[in-house]
Amino acid sequence: MFNFNYYTPTKVVFGKETEKQVGRLIKEFGGSRVLIHYGGKSAVRSGLINQVKEALDNEQIPHVELGGVVPNPHLGKVREGIALAKAAGVDFILAVGGGSVIDSAKAIAYALADPERDVWELFQHTRKAKGCLPVASVLTIAAAGSEMSNSCVITNEETGEKRSYNDDIARPKFAIMNPELTMTLPDYQTQAGATDIMMHTMERYFTQGGNMELTDELAEGLLRTVMKYAEILHADPANYEARAEVMWASSLAHNGLTGCGNNGGDFASHMLEHEMGGMFDVTHGAGLAAVWPSWARYVYREDLPRFVRYAVKVMGVNPAGKTEEDVALEGIHKMEEFYHRIGMPVNMRELGIAPTDEQIREMAESCVRASADGHIGSAKVLYLEDMIAIYKMAR
Amino acid sequence: MFNFNYYTPTKVVFGKETEKQVGRLIKEFGGSRVLIHYGGKSAVRSGLINQVKEALDNEQIPHVELGGVVPNPHLGKVREGIALAKAAGVDFILAVGGGSVIDSAKAIAYALADPERDVWELFQHTRKAKGCLPVASVLTIAAAGSEMSNSCVITNEETGEKRSYNDDIARPKFAIMNPELTMTLPDYQTQAGATDIMMHTMERYFTQGGNMELTDELAEGLLRTVMKYAEILHADPANYEARAEVMWASSLAHNGLTGCGNNGGDFASHMLEHEMGGMFDVTHGAGLAAVWPSWARYVYREDLPRFVRYAVKVMGVNPAGKTEEDVALEGIHKMEEFYHRIGMPVNMRELGIAPTDEQIREMAESCVRASADGHIGSAKVLYLEDMIAIYKMAR
Repeated sequence: MFNFNYYTPTKVVFGKETEKQVGRLIKEFGGSRVLIHYGGKSAVRSGLINQVKEALDNEQIPHVELGGVVPNPHLGKVREGIALAKAAGVDFILAVGGGSVIDSAKAIAYALADPERDVWELFQHTRKAKGCLPVASVLTIAAAGSEMSNSCVITNEETGEKRSYNDDIARPKFAIMNPELTMTLPDYQTQAGATDIMMHTMERYFTQGGNMELTDELAEGLLRTVMKYAEILHADPANYEARAEVMWASSLAHNGLTGCGNNGGDFASHMLEHEMGGMFDVTHGAGLAAVWPSWARYVYREDLPRFVRYAVKVMGVNPAGKTEEDVALEGIHKMEEFYHRIGMPVNMRELGIAPTDEQIREMAESCVRASADGHIGSAKVLYLEDMIAIYKMAR
Repeated sequence: MFNFNYYTPTKVVFGKETEKQVGRLIKEFGGSRVLIHYGGKSAVRSGLINQVKEALDNEQIPHVELGGVVPNPHLGKVREGIALAKAAGVDFILAVGGGSVIDSAKAIAYALADPERDVWELFQHTRKAKGCLPVASVLTIAAAGSEMSNSCVITNEETGEKRSYNDDIARPKFAIMNPELTMTLPDYQTQAGATDIMMHTMERYFTQGGNMELTDELAEGLLRTVMKYAEILHADPANYEARAEVMWASSLAHNGLTGCGNNGGDFASHMLEHEMGGMFDVTHGAGLAAVWPSWARYVYREDLPRFVRYAVKVMGVNPAGKTEEDVALEGIHKMEEFYHRIGMPVNMRELGIAPTDEQIREMAESCVRASADGHIGSAKVLYLEDMIAIYKMAR
C-alpha cells in the first residue's frame, strides 16, 4: 500500500430538478460574472441553456455564453472562450454538458488565472498552473467524471495531439447531476460513457502492487453496478434509477476514490486511445472498448492474480477446476461479450477505423512523446514496440 | 432513490509520516494562529504533540494548546477551549486525537465564529450555526469518522445529555491519517472503533426505501473489509495494512458516501447508545455493539429484504433452503458471533452496565427529547415504548 492524498472538494447536488439550484450555488461559491459554456445544439433545443440563464437571472448574476464545444474538445474553442471571458470580465465558468465541455471550461479557467501565458504549455507539461478560476458544471452526460476530477484533456486540432493536464486546483466547485438530463442521449453515447466510467476504475485496478482491499472492494462494487445498469439502459434508456446509478458512478470512478493506496494507476489504455482520438476523432469510450481487450491479452501474464480476481469478482467467472491463466482469459473474453451486449466494439475494425502500419507507428510515437519518460502503464510497462504490438492486435 | 447532496471537502493526507506535513497544510488552509487540542497523556508521551508543535514552529505558526479531552467529550472542556482560543486570538483549531477531540474542536470552532452566543444552543437545536472556524486533525483513533464528517457530539456533563449537531460548515479542512499512530491503542479501543465504523454505514444501510445499488455495493464492500481487518488486528495489533484499511474505512463510513440516495439513514442505534453513553459513560463503539442485536431483532421484520441482503452479502449466510426470516436472523446471530470474536459485548450485561427499569425509562425519555419529533429510526419508526422494549431486550 502506498501513501495517498484524497481530495474531492466538489459539492455534488444530485437528483431531479437540481439544475434549478444553479444560480444559488454559483453565489455560494462566489461567482459574480459567469461564462456559460456548452456543446452542441441539443442543450439549447432541450431548453436547458435557457433554464440555466433564467436561474442566473433570478440571482442577478450577469452571464455570457459560448457553445460549440465538440467531443475531443479543441484548443481553438478554448482560445475563443478565453478571449470572450477576458472581454466580459468573467470570474466563474459554468460548464453545461459532459466531459468535453467541462474540460474546455477548465482549460479556459487555467488561462484566465494566468492570462499572460499560453495555456497549451500546461498540456505540453512545460510548466505547472499558477491558478484556476472556479469551474462548476450542470452535467448532461455520464462518462468522463470531469465533474469531480482534477483532469482535463484537450486536443490541439492543428497538430492532432490530444493531451491531458491534471491539477487539484481545477477540481470543480460544484456539480449538478440530474439523471433526467441524460435520458435523451443516443444509446451509443450512453454505452461509450459506461465504458469510459468502468475504464477509469479499471485503470486504477490493474496496477503492479500497492493495492488496498477497501479500494478493491469499492472498485469491484462500482464495476458490477455500472455493468448491470448499462445493460438495463441498452434496453430501457429512460430508466431513471439506471441513469442515476451510472451517473453517480461516473463521478466516483474518476474522483480518486477507486485508486486510494495504489501506485497511481496504469492508464495505458487511456494513453493508447488518446492517440486514436487525436488521429481519427473516435468516441472516447468506444475507442477504449476497442483497445482494452488487446491491451489485457498483451499484459495479463504480468499481473495474473489481479486478472484472476477481476474475472471472478467482477465478471463472475467460476474458477473451479481452471488454471489461473484460463480464469484470467475467460474474464477478458466475458468483458468482450459485455461490450458486444451494450453495442460497443472490441477492436478497431468494429470501431470503424483501419489504421495503416505507418499510422500505427505514428500513434505509438506520439504516445511515447505524450508520456513522461518514454513509456506508459504499470500493470506492464509499455515501450514503443509494445504499443505498436497492442495497436496491431486491436486492429 | 432520493435526491442527495454529497460534500466532502476535507483533504486527506494518508500514510506513513504524513504528520510531518501538518505545518504546511495549516498554511495552505490559511491558519495563522493555532489551538492544538488533544486528549489524554498518551499523545504527549508518544511524542506526537511535540512533533506537531515542531512542525508548526518550522512554519512560524504560533500556537497554544489544550489537552484533557475525554471520551464522550464534555461541554466544560469546550468552554475552556473557547476561553483560551479567544484570549490567544486563534484562527485555526487543530485536533490531535480521535473523534472526541475532533468533536470538541468543532464545538470550539462554532463558538469562536459566533462568540456572543452559547454554543450549547446548537446541540439543543434551538438555532443554527452562523459560521465555524477552520478545523483539521491529526487522527490517532480510527472510529468516529469525525475527521471528514459534518457531525459533532458533545456531552453536557452537568445534565448527562449527549447531543449532536451536524453542519457542513464544520467539515474539517484536512485530515492527516498515519495508521502507525493507531498502533498503540488497546485492543478494546481498536475493536470499539471498528464497531463504530461499521455502524456508521449500517445506520445508512438499514432504511426504508431510497436505496441505491451503487451505495449498497460500496457499503457492503466497506463492511466486509472492516470485519476482515478488525479480526486481523485482534490477533496482530501492529499490522500496518490492517490499521490502514480500518482507518480509511473510518472516514468513508461516515463522510456521506455510504448513504447517497437513501432517506438519511436510521441512526436509532446511535440515538439509543447516546443515552447509554450519557448515563453510564460507556465506550461508544462497545455501547453500539451492546444495543444493535436487540435493535435488529426488534425491527428486522419491517425491513426483511434488507436484513436478508445484509445476511447474505455481508455476513456470508448461505440462503439455500431457508426462509427469509431464518436468513435474516442468522445474519444477526453471525454479527453477534463477530462481535464476540473481536471482544465486543452483545448486550448491556456484557458491556458491564445494569440499568434499572427506572433508568431505562429515563434513557428512553431523554432519547425522545433528543429526537426531532418524538421518534427515532427509519427501518422501523420507534417511539418511547419501542425504545424501552429494545433497552430491556438488550439488558
